[in-house]
Amino acid sequence: MPTVRVTRRVHFNAAHRLHNPALSDEENRRIYGPCNNPNWHGHNYELDITVEGEPDPDTGYLVDLGEVRDAAEEVLKDVDHRNLNLDVPWLEGVIPSTENLVVALWERLAPRIPRGRLARLVLFETPRNWAEYSGE
Amino acid sequence: MPTVRVTRRVHFNAAHRLHNPALSDEENRRIYGPCNNPNWHGHNYELDITVEGEPDPDTGYLVDLGEVRDAAEEVLKDVDHRNLNLDVPWLEGVIPSTENLVVALWERLAPRIPRGRLARLVLFETPRNWAEYSGE
Amino acid sequence: MPTVRVTRRVHFNAAHRLHNPALSDEENRRIYGPCNNPNWHGHNYELDITVEGEPDPDTGYLVDLGEVRDAAEEVLKDVDHRNLNLDVPWLEGVIPSTENLVVALWERLAPRIPRGRLARLVLFETPRNWAEYSGE
Amino acid sequence: MPTVRVTRRVHFNAAHRLHNPALSDEENRRIYGPCNNPNWHGHNYELDITVEGEPDPDTGYLVDLGEVRDAAEEVLKDVDHRNLNLDVPWLEGVIPSTENLVVALWERLAPRIPRGRLARLVLFETPRNWAEYSGE
Amino acid sequence: MPTVRVTRRVHFNAAHRLHNPALSDEENRRIYGPCNNPNWHGHNYELDITVEGEPDPDTGYLVDLGEVRDAAEEVLKDVDHRNLNLDVPWLEGVIPSTENLVVALWERLAPRIPRGRLARLVLFETPRNWAEYSGE
Amino acid sequence: MPTVRVTRRVHFNAAHRLHNPALSDEENRRIYGPCNNPNWHGHNYELDITVEGEPDPDTGYLVDLGEVRDAAEEVLKDVDHRNLNLDVPWLEGVIPSTENLVVALWERLAPRIPRGRLARLVLFETPRNWAEYSGE
Repeated sequence: MPTVRVTRRVHFNAAHRLHNPALSDEENRRIYGPCNNPNWHGHNYELDITVEGEPDPDTGYLVDLGEVRDAAEEVLKDVDHRNLNLDVPWLEGVIPSTENLVVALWERLAPRIPRGRLARLVLFETPRNWAEYSGE
Repeated sequence: MPTVRVTRRVHFNAAHRLHNPALSDEENRRIYGPCNNPNWHGHNYELDITVEGEPDPDTGYLVDLGEVRDAAEEVLKDVDHRNLNLDVPWLEGVIPSTENLVVALWERLAPRIPRGRLARLVLFETPRNWAEYSGE
Repeated sequence: MPTVRVTRRVHFNAAHRLHNPALSDEENRRIYGPCNNPNWHGHNYELDITVEGEPDPDTGYLVDLGEVRDAAEEVLKDVDHRNLNLDVPWLEGVIPSTENLVVALWERLAPRIPRGRLARLVLFETPRNWAEYSGE
Repeated sequence: MPTVRVTRRVHFNAAHRLHNPALSDEENRRIYGPCNNPNWHGHNYELDITVEGEPDPDTGYLVDLGEVRDAAEEVLKDVDHRNLNLDVPWLEGVIPSTENLVVALWERLAPRIPRGRLARLVLFETPRNWAEYSGE
Repeated sequence: MPTVRVTRRVHFNAAHRLHNPALSDEENRRIYGPCNNPNWHGHNYELDITVEGEPDPDTGYLVDLGEVRDAAEEVLKDVDHRNLNLDVPWLEGVIPSTENLVVALWERLAPRIPRGRLARLVLFETPRNWAEYSGE
Repeated sequence: MPTVRVTRRVHFNAAHRLHNPALSDEENRRIYGPCNNPNWHGHNYELDITVEGEPDPDTGYLVDLGEVRDAAEEVLKDVDHRNLNLDVPWLEGVIPSTENLVVALWERLAPRIPRGRLARLVLFETPRNWAEYSGE
């Protein structure tokens, strides 16, 4: 059987601030610039969820992408229309850079994929800016 | 001379919250749902700035779109990477819905257009959601 | 109060065939080419629903776009994952060209818009091909 | 019968230079900046051709968009993979700004539309920069 | 010589139905939901064809993408404006899921690539839903 | 620490001509067709710059994408609004196909990436045509 990959794109939007409380305010401003604004800013995020495996010969599906969307919604309800620094228990202590966020989303999503294995997440912070993680 | 329209797309991102302080918290939650989150959420905004008029026969330009971009940046520096409810003097007392925001941006941008006249603003809150204003 | 326009983009996909039963098969093939295939073909449609009016000063909303989406879903459930020639009572006797389809969608959607008035529909048959109707 | 609009998007790419030979080199550089490069630069252009009118009750088509595409190709073969300043007889003496170019394309396209009337052209020089003309 | 990849995006549209005749109608409805509609539905497909190899030092081309497009058209003429379940001999007995379709397209396209080797196909069923195959 | 990839998209536009001076004019026309036009043509290019590595635990950044953009601008100022055959010292003797161009950009960009390592460049000549290089 051939190995294929299927991807489902989902979205959410959120407020956040890049800030490391272990550093001084001045260092934070130098490192993060406007992303350090204490009153927050925000983004429309797009997340591409890629699952890898062999299609089931009975259905032609590697995985039902409707079930992938449902699994994603279960995770994304914690971040959609939320503040990533204040509202999300599983992001406590995490600086919500796109890099850290895509890794944290992997931890939540990987065990929820109902068939095949999570192979790649691509998280778009803007249409010109994104991070990618393959679980390693 | 023909009348043409030229458009420049610019972008910014911001945090906001939809909330009317004259209404009860319960009414606010009913009207705005997750957009009422007291800890904010945010968006990548795109703004299409359309100027109308006759091209200058000497330059072929209705307006130098570099100058339109500069005028836009002068306005957008107030909202980019900001909190629309807390950080922007000219949005004080304004519920930052896309409708209200596009009208407020018009007031700031219209007098700064260096040639021709501002004819339309389209403000995208998400790629599937936008508001449009033509100054009337 | 300013008059603004807000737009919500929704989507559906469907099979169809362009065919006028009053014409001969040969004429149908000449007019419609591959779009006349008796075994159908199909598209992902995108529909931009634009509502015009004055924002409500209490909410900042011209219309709640969530309610527009709900109104659209009530209409689009008849066409989504359907055959436009066979499955849709309100398209009976209508050749499902993009032109005819956008007019038929207007008739269904206009009375369901909860605030303001339907001002324009743009129906994309492909990303390079679309029809637009403003109710007149 | 309802009045609708249909649009077909077509594309071409070309080299050009913004330069007014009636002005000094210094003035040209001041006005056009890098767009004045004597060795040219270039763009991928997209052109949205909008036709307005009543659908033909026999076909459901306002106009066959395949015929619109053919009419466009007849015009665009003169500019596609060409130098807009050197290669196009009908642009002689025209500074190839997007404004001037969209008006010149209108003159060529309007008489070739086989049914309905040309209602609008939108010419994208880049995805963030465009000009629009409605024939007046 | 460096190894590069070049990609050409092509498109087609088609009707289909997800249905396994070895299963009961009830099981088919449970597995495929609205995609099982006996009257078909359809999509605009986009196909990204990626070829890998070393550029020819004489031409700078890994492969002439015009020839890749021609090879693709030779294959896609069988599916464009067609019914994937009824009209395509080389899809007989194949449930036309995106997964199965991308593998079937690989078999047709791989031997037609005139230079380099087919490295990846990405088949978009919608802009938010796609399958990818690399030949293994 | 996890290994992630971050990408920044940047753009430029340029004129060019595909032509191998070692071949006859006739051979050049046969190989390159309209891309051989002696008066040049041009494109809007998009370049996706992907950097791979481990996020810095102190900042959450694999690399500051603002610094990646600055490094890119340092390179792209040589090609933006330029003629790739005439204006760019580091492209002398290079046929400016997308394949050759993406490799040449790699040589310039790789040593300028301030943290992590350049992992992939994708250079779009048009939205339907692109080349990709991973440094090997």
